[in-house]
Amino acid sequence: MVDAQQQSQQFMQAAIDEARQGLEEGGIPIGSVIVHRGRIIGRGHNRRVQQGSVVLHGEMDAFENAGRQNARVYAEATLYTTLSPCAMCSGAILLYGIGEVVVGENRTFMGEEALLRERGVRVTVLQDERCIALMNDFIRERPALWNEDIGQESDC
Amino acid sequence: MVDAQQQSQQFMQAAIDEARQGLEEGGIPIGSVIVHRGRIIGRGHNRRVQQGSVVLHGEMDAFENAGRQNARVYAEATLYTTLSPCAMCSGAILLYGIGEVVVGENRTFMGEEALLRERGVRVTVLQDERCIALMNDFIRERPALWNEDIGQESDC
Repeated sequence: MVDAQQQSQQFMQAAIDEARQGLEEGGIPIGSVIVHRGRIIGRGHNRRVQQGSVVLHGEMDAFENAGRQNARVYAEATLYTTLSPCAMCSGAILLYGIGEVVVGENRTFMGEEALLRERGVRVTVLQDERCIALMNDFIRERPALWNEDIGQESDC
Repeated sequence: MVDAQQQSQQFMQAAIDEARQGLEEGGIPIGSVIVHRGRIIGRGHNRRVQQGSVVLHGEMDAFENAGRQNARVYAEATLYTTLSPCAMCSGAILLYGIGEVVVGENRTFMGEEALLRERGVRVTVLQDERCIALMNDFIRERPALWNEDIGQESDC
């Protein structure tokens, strides 16, 4: 029997696997999965480098791969993401009425968690050391790329 | 000599052309262009039907086609869109620091204009009759598709 916490760890592991796959591809190590009734319906990772995409953050790639679901499915779904979701990804979460978001960490980047909570989304932050290490290493090595991904100017 | 108002009308016309192209493709008639220093750097229209995409709203498609711009370019840009931008598209506008948004209409759908203004984005709404007619006709003919695009349940 798998309890809720074990299941949650398993889905965050899947999001971390996505982030690591992105890193192996030379990309930005942020991953996400969308889960409905205990099953992953969409998984993804940031595609800025790989596809030259400015909209496919990890969460957005997971939405794109989950595809055209019934509104009820998205409303019942939980989104797991290795990093606190930015304004764009938080907007997608609100658009599709995702009820719950599990965030790997918000130490390296604080997204729109306050807005999500204000609009009724349940947000849990794990401060997972693996997620923090992935981003710390990446930001140190590729600061200009990271700034570009979050819409910031860069002196690098 | 082209004055500012004429130029603005020209860019809204380009967004409407995108919306109409989407309609001709059997898709949702919402279009957008991103303008930097008097030049269109990205144009797009909703791709839900054409590509089965849940992230490529008109505005998002315009961002994707504008691509990996310097943060300063996006900050100086104006986004024209035929319809008031939803939470996801407003989030992308905030992420990339777009300073100004010109909206065709917000009668058929009210997006996150209040949030955009609260965060310092200049928002102008034209209530353009052509944009209103495009959406009124579309919503009447394809209500289930429209509800899906804005994350709503549908009885249709």
